[in-house]
Amino acid sequence: MVLSNCAHFDRETPSSELSEIMTSADSYCLKYFPIEGLGQTSRDILAAGGAKWENLFPENWATEKDQTPFGCMPLLYINKNGKEVVISESAAIDFYLAKQFGMLGSNQYEEALIGAFYTSTSSVMITFVSQVTWNQSEAKKASLETFKERSFKYWVKAHERHLIDNGSNGHYVGNELTLADIRTTAFFNHLSHQPEGPELMEIVKAAPALWKVMETVNNHPKLAKYRASEDYKTLVENTIGFYKDPFAAVAAMAAK
Amino acid sequence: MVLSNCAHFDRETPSSELSEIMTSADSYCLKYFPIEGLGQTSRDILAAGGAKWENLFPENWATEKDQTPFGCMPLLYINKNGKEVVISESAAIDFYLAKQFGMLGSNQYEEALIGAFYTSTSSVMITFVSQVTWNQSEAKKASLETFKERSFKYWVKAHERHLIDNGSNGHYVGNELTLADIRTTAFFNHLSHQPEGPELMEIVKAAPALWKVMETVNNHPKLAKYRASEDYKTLVENTIGFYKDPFAAVAAMAAK
Repeated sequence: MVLSNCAHFDRETPSSELSEIMTSADSYCLKYFPIEGLGQTSRDILAAGGAKWENLFPENWATEKDQTPFGCMPLLYINKNGKEVVISESAAIDFYLAKQFGMLGSNQYEEALIGAFYTSTSSVMITFVSQVTWNQSEAKKASLETFKERSFKYWVKAHERHLIDNGSNGHYVGNELTLADIRTTAFFNHLSHQPEGPELMEIVKAAPALWKVMETVNNHPKLAKYRASEDYKTLVENTIGFYKDPFAAVAAMAAK
Repeated sequence: MVLSNCAHFDRETPSSELSEIMTSADSYCLKYFPIEGLGQTSRDILAAGGAKWENLFPENWATEKDQTPFGCMPLLYINKNGKEVVISESAAIDFYLAKQFGMLGSNQYEEALIGAFYTSTSSVMITFVSQVTWNQSEAKKASLETFKERSFKYWVKAHERHLIDNGSNGHYVGNELTLADIRTTAFFNHLSHQPEGPELMEIVKAAPALWKVMETVNNHPKLAKYRASEDYKTLVENTIGFYKDPFAAVAAMAAK
């Protein structure tokens, strides 16, 4: 597939036509680095939703960066009958896909709850990524302790409470798979593949309702099949390799 | 107003009833610290939308923190005929309010664009807040330079390009006020009231299409009236005072 330069959003085609492609798409391509990270929630929605989709990976990110709307990935290419729409920013992509595949609840209140859980989880993941993953090596140990004792413990406590309120049934809202369940599970899978994974997942283990969300999502028939695929296994291997020394991994990528 | 303990979301009332209150609300209360920060986008939507609304401020945040869904604000209290729904997390609140007041575009494509601009702006603001505002004083100068030269310059360049694509008309999408316009303007107003404001706003000044968004939003008739109100002026004064020394301001708040 030839990747189009999408530094510019499509402003030529009437937005109603682009919208029609988005609501009745026949296939999708998700472009992101070949790791889990910020692309995995979208991938998991596509897999759980039984979509026709494939991964795209940058061949030379240094030059491709300037051909994206904001200099970042993921990007989602939405296709219908050979026509294409490109959207950007992981949250915008995740919410669009969740809506497409019926994972945003059944009314405005449920959508607001799902949006709140999603945002809360994304925030704590950003905190981890900025304070631990990308911190200077000499600051990492203290930052990890602070993250564990403050942000993460508080997040676990709050989410566990809300899950108990929903009957500890493996879902955040009602009895259905939603974006909130998938987002939290993608976060846990990401954490599990970090050097700091074991000690952080110990904290999650002590919160049975949270643990059950992860098990429920990972055992969803379509997702269990996806997790067993070579595609996903490669992403996991890459994730583990990348985060052993993320600064070196980025330097290697830039030198390519 | 007596504030309810909302550590728990309402799971008793049928969600369809809560949803009905949300879609036909008659008034709103936004609870947040008495500064602009992460509460201002919601306040600006409420003001621009001509809603009946008021601010709530914590009286003793140390005790009230545990009475919120995630230990953070803003919270939005949505009222109809004496009934109340509480939602949490700034992004979830902003998107709900934007939908209520017709600021999410006219179709799925426009909504995805608005969501992407919103998220891109929130991300660069979080980068500023974590790398500059809350960084150790000895690291601030170097971090500010990095923020200016990398994240912020790239963000400005990308957004300016997308605004030119829309005709440099003071709006991100079409010819109407949307959440994207309000989010970017709230970010600029926040920046303007930081110690680092002058040099950062110089960079924005060199991007006329971005500057025009801010002028268009701030001159919107309902928002111009709100900006001139004592309520807003006090928020601005508090914001300037708080960010002169944010660590000291937080310590003072905790000691209350």
